[in-house]
Amino acid sequence: MSINQLISKIISKSNPTVAGLDPSPSVIPPCILEKHIGEYGCTLKAAAESVLEFNRGIIDALHDIVPAVKPQSAFYEMYGPDGIDALKKTIEYAKLKNLYVIADAKRGDIGSTAEAYAAAYLGKIKIGDTEISPFDADSLTVNAYLGSDGVKPFLDICKDRKKSIFILVKTSNPSSSEFQDLIAGTRTVYRAVAEKASAWGSDLIGEYGYSEVGFVVGATYPGQLMELRRNYQNTFFLVPGYGAQGAKAQDLAVAFDRRGLGAIVNSSRGIIGAWKNTGSKDGSNYTDAAREAAAAMKKDLETYCI
Amino acid sequence: MSINQLISKIISKSNPTVAGLDPSPSVIPPCILEKHIGEYGCTLKAAAESVLEFNRGIIDALHDIVPAVKPQSAFYEMYGPDGIDALKKTIEYAKLKNLYVIADAKRGDIGSTAEAYAAAYLGKIKIGDTEISPFDADSLTVNAYLGSDGVKPFLDICKDRKKSIFILVKTSNPSSSEFQDLIAGTRTVYRAVAEKASAWGSDLIGEYGYSEVGFVVGATYPGQLMELRRNYQNTFFLVPGYGAQGAKAQDLAVAFDRRGLGAIVNSSRGIIGAWKNTGSKDGSNYTDAAREAAAAMKKDLETYCI
Repeated sequence: MSINQLISKIISKSNPTVAGLDPSPSVIPPCILEKHIGEYGCTLKAAAESVLEFNRGIIDALHDIVPAVKPQSAFYEMYGPDGIDALKKTIEYAKLKNLYVIADAKRGDIGSTAEAYAAAYLGKIKIGDTEISPFDADSLTVNAYLGSDGVKPFLDICKDRKKSIFILVKTSNPSSSEFQDLIAGTRTVYRAVAEKASAWGSDLIGEYGYSEVGFVVGATYPGQLMELRRNYQNTFFLVPGYGAQGAKAQDLAVAFDRRGLGAIVNSSRGIIGAWKNTGSKDGSNYTDAAREAAAAMKKDLETYCI
Repeated sequence: MSINQLISKIISKSNPTVAGLDPSPSVIPPCILEKHIGEYGCTLKAAAESVLEFNRGIIDALHDIVPAVKPQSAFYEMYGPDGIDALKKTIEYAKLKNLYVIADAKRGDIGSTAEAYAAAYLGKIKIGDTEISPFDADSLTVNAYLGSDGVKPFLDICKDRKKSIFILVKTSNPSSSEFQDLIAGTRTVYRAVAEKASAWGSDLIGEYGYSEVGFVVGATYPGQLMELRRNYQNTFFLVPGYGAQGAKAQDLAVAFDRRGLGAIVNSSRGIIGAWKNTGSKDGSNYTDAAREAAAAMKKDLETYCI
């Protein structure tokens, strides 16, 4: 699925939200975890089965109101091989429900290693005479510290298979200034990254005017968000930092173009962990709580955005 | 295992080599792959089982002459959940053979996500009342583009569990200059990263005078390697770029201190893919070829290093 299809979904659902599927131990409802511990004991398998059940519930609850989900790879890797199996099945289930899937793995490496990552998450590999897509996400987050030759294999797959990538440009965390805001000549390091990333994506621009190569830009830095929106009008933004990290809808307005397009805003704990603010102890209301939180976020965003 | 133990192994084996376990499809001997395809068909499972058999053979062939192995995560992720199972079992087997294991995953993220990565690769997670170490490597490569708060969870585990990390400072690839060599004020970006990384590791210095927080510095840039060695005398280096990427032993001499310590040099394809230069078609001689290549590399390095 190309970035055009993500944008079409955003338009048809009037909602530029991506639900972050970050199933940390603290957001998995006890009612789910206890059931699987009952079956598999206190094992990684029990945790991974809980993650999968939880994610399917979240996807069922959200798929008609949000256009995309973003599984955060760390929260699957932490449950070992079973966790990765849950990641794979989560991606499959989300695609079955017609959601755009952004694998948030922040991969970045060189040469044949970058090719392997690109093949794993967005492409295909060949075993004997059979081609297999190991994860087949629609999009992947990429760390470009290693430079162009680490990104090229991802670009090749974006071109061949209508996939997208989001390059880390200006991240939402407090320390992102340490390296990203260093001034190199007349510009910041993050602007240097943005400049390259924009060039990498310049021949991958689709019908809405946005490239398959997007930026990650934190909502916690509205000044930089505005600066980047103005300067990179063909670049779609993945915007973390709303909600739990402190950014508000009015901070986000600058991420969008005049049509109300150009960005998708992530919320993870704010949606999938919403049950924790309801007073529920076992979390059995997690799907209703997630749907309510996603609906509230949509309403909050539409005041300023789409 | 702490960085001290890695250094002890390097001394006792007189060999500052880490064998990169990068089981790309092109280095897996056909005799192994065909056997597992026979059992599991053309599946990710067949590839993953091949990887595990291949790695065990390599580890058996090398464990008495090299101190460490470095599985490159991409070449396991590309085989899906089964590939990650092969990674986990490879780490277990290498540790059983008393090798130091550097998981080359170049992870980097923020807050609770960085905590999840740190727990996955170097730490423990809790399921119910049980603590489990999902991968339990000795060391992990880390991308610090996101700044200190993305690195802190790794530092906490280095401290608590005697683990190490290697921060990407100046990578070996041709495009590493694009961002890493930008001049910010009076120094390059890679020096800014080095400066922070050195500070992060300043209270984690062990008996040989080296910190649990090391740098990745490419052998393909001997000038920068020398500069960093001179300026960061308490920092141990993981040095890729020898062999297949073009760097020679004489380029590496500058990475070492007067004792011949301070760095470990990676070779991946040069060792595990050595069978491909022997004329063998089925690769059934891969263990002998790997051992010979590792012995030749040791000899090559000892002229200049330890």
